[in-house]
Amino acid sequence: MRDFSNDLSSLALNTATLGHNLDGYGAGWSTEQVIDACAERGFGGIVFWRRELANNAISIGERVRASGMQVVGLCRAPFLVGPLVDAGGARAVHDELLRAIDLAAALQAPVLTIVAGGVEPGSKGIVESLSVLADRVAAAVPHATDCKVKLALEPLHPVYAGDRSCLVTLRDALDICDRIDSTQVGVAIDVYHVWWDTTLQAQLERAGSSRILGYHLCDWLANTSDILLDRGMMGDGVAHLVNLRQWVEDAGYSGFCEIEIFSANNWWQRSPNEVLDQCVERFKSVC
Amino acid sequence: MRDFSNDLSSLALNTATLGHNLDGYGAGWSTEQVIDACAERGFGGIVFWRRELANNAISIGERVRASGMQVVGLCRAPFLVGPLVDAGGARAVHDELLRAIDLAAALQAPVLTIVAGGVEPGSKGIVESLSVLADRVAAAVPHATDCKVKLALEPLHPVYAGDRSCLVTLRDALDICDRIDSTQVGVAIDVYHVWWDTTLQAQLERAGSSRILGYHLCDWLANTSDILLDRGMMGDGVAHLVNLRQWVEDAGYSGFCEIEIFSANNWWQRSPNEVLDQCVERFKSVC
Repeated sequence: MRDFSNDLSSLALNTATLGHNLDGYGAGWSTEQVIDACAERGFGGIVFWRRELANNAISIGERVRASGMQVVGLCRAPFLVGPLVDAGGARAVHDELLRAIDLAAALQAPVLTIVAGGVEPGSKGIVESLSVLADRVAAAVPHATDCKVKLALEPLHPVYAGDRSCLVTLRDALDICDRIDSTQVGVAIDVYHVWWDTTLQAQLERAGSSRILGYHLCDWLANTSDILLDRGMMGDGVAHLVNLRQWVEDAGYSGFCEIEIFSANNWWQRSPNEVLDQCVERFKSVC
Repeated sequence: MRDFSNDLSSLALNTATLGHNLDGYGAGWSTEQVIDACAERGFGGIVFWRRELANNAISIGERVRASGMQVVGLCRAPFLVGPLVDAGGARAVHDELLRAIDLAAALQAPVLTIVAGGVEPGSKGIVESLSVLADRVAAAVPHATDCKVKLALEPLHPVYAGDRSCLVTLRDALDICDRIDSTQVGVAIDVYHVWWDTTLQAQLERAGSSRILGYHLCDWLANTSDILLDRGMMGDGVAHLVNLRQWVEDAGYSGFCEIEIFSANNWWQRSPNEVLDQCVERFKSVC
């Protein structure tokens, strides 16, 4: 297991951790300020959200690399299935997915995260929706291959199964990977979503190093007050972060550890400098 | 698969569906009124909560049976592990569990439902807590055997893993059953908690008829607004109720289907008569 106590080269910031500077959260920092603040602290990389990139993806990517960091990934593809899919149906979803891949390519982000979306309207259970999801991901693989962007299926916590993600376990994500059978498609592991799963270690072994495309850090607060926006800072919750990283690394993963904390009433209320300092401290000590 | 379109003999009401008449919910019906209203409609059984039974468990049980119904079970054991365990520690938990078994016996309820409780304070992940849980359940088996009360481990939805239930999958529940290895211990299956699990059918087969001690009905609303008190009436959500019951029955279960709907802002605001009528209608048509 890697020793991070004096090595931040594998530490990445997902900008969601600073509240996106949207909807009244965050300190109003520009993307450039975020990049500089991460570089100053020795972060190894950054993950952006599409909303932060207008026509500046190329220059943002260049600024990150000029700062000595890497663009680790892009959040995220549009919902591909379920009730929150934008109007326009399958064709519009496909087109938006291709545009998201283009944006990742412009940023030189090696990975685009895919959040599935929930249960297809009119259907019951998740099986049918998972099948539609697999088809829609598969349809984007040729373009992703051309763009050298890998697609990371991220299983979300089962609490989101209805509306945000019919994909709720690593097992199901790997089943889709098996079905698509492309080196361009893998999985992202987020401790918030999978910490409760006693089959995780076995499924990580099944995934293997080539299919684990990302590892996301935060914590699950025992008394969480909100399912979307009350994630904990590493160490403040009940996820066994050491075991989880051990298993991910035992499976062969040696990539970035990406801190992604949605926290409307706590961390998003603090100054970005304080949040970043805490990220560094916790990354060194409890992850 | 059993045909319920004209047969309510397997229909049971969990009284939580009427809001417990507590905290401002429900219509203030007495337990006797609930029993009579269920009997009038042809329900086969009722499940009570401990809070509804003062020193009247024996007479309540008798009234149910005199009405032509059965007491199907008792909700529930105290939290056995985790942060919500009452003060007093392991000894107090054990004693309260025995008292809950006594209460089930007084009611002549064949099953006491066990809700585990969350992650043990000071620990990380769920494995250690599951081990403590298994020990505490095992310690009550002799008394449960004497009282002819079976103990049903109910895996709750993973969203509760932090505070209310470190036991979140049927797989983990059966692992505990295997470890305790007593015919007195089995599982309860609640569609709200397990509907998202693609390994459920296989795990139900593993459970077998002797270990499935209960089957609970409600629905998972795609856009659920509250994780504790916004369960849906059967048919209003995205759980595949037909498949779920098929799997449970394929595993050999032929017992009651117990409707348990926590719904502070919808069903608990309606008259008990309307709720019970809807329970009957939905049970016949969509379960």
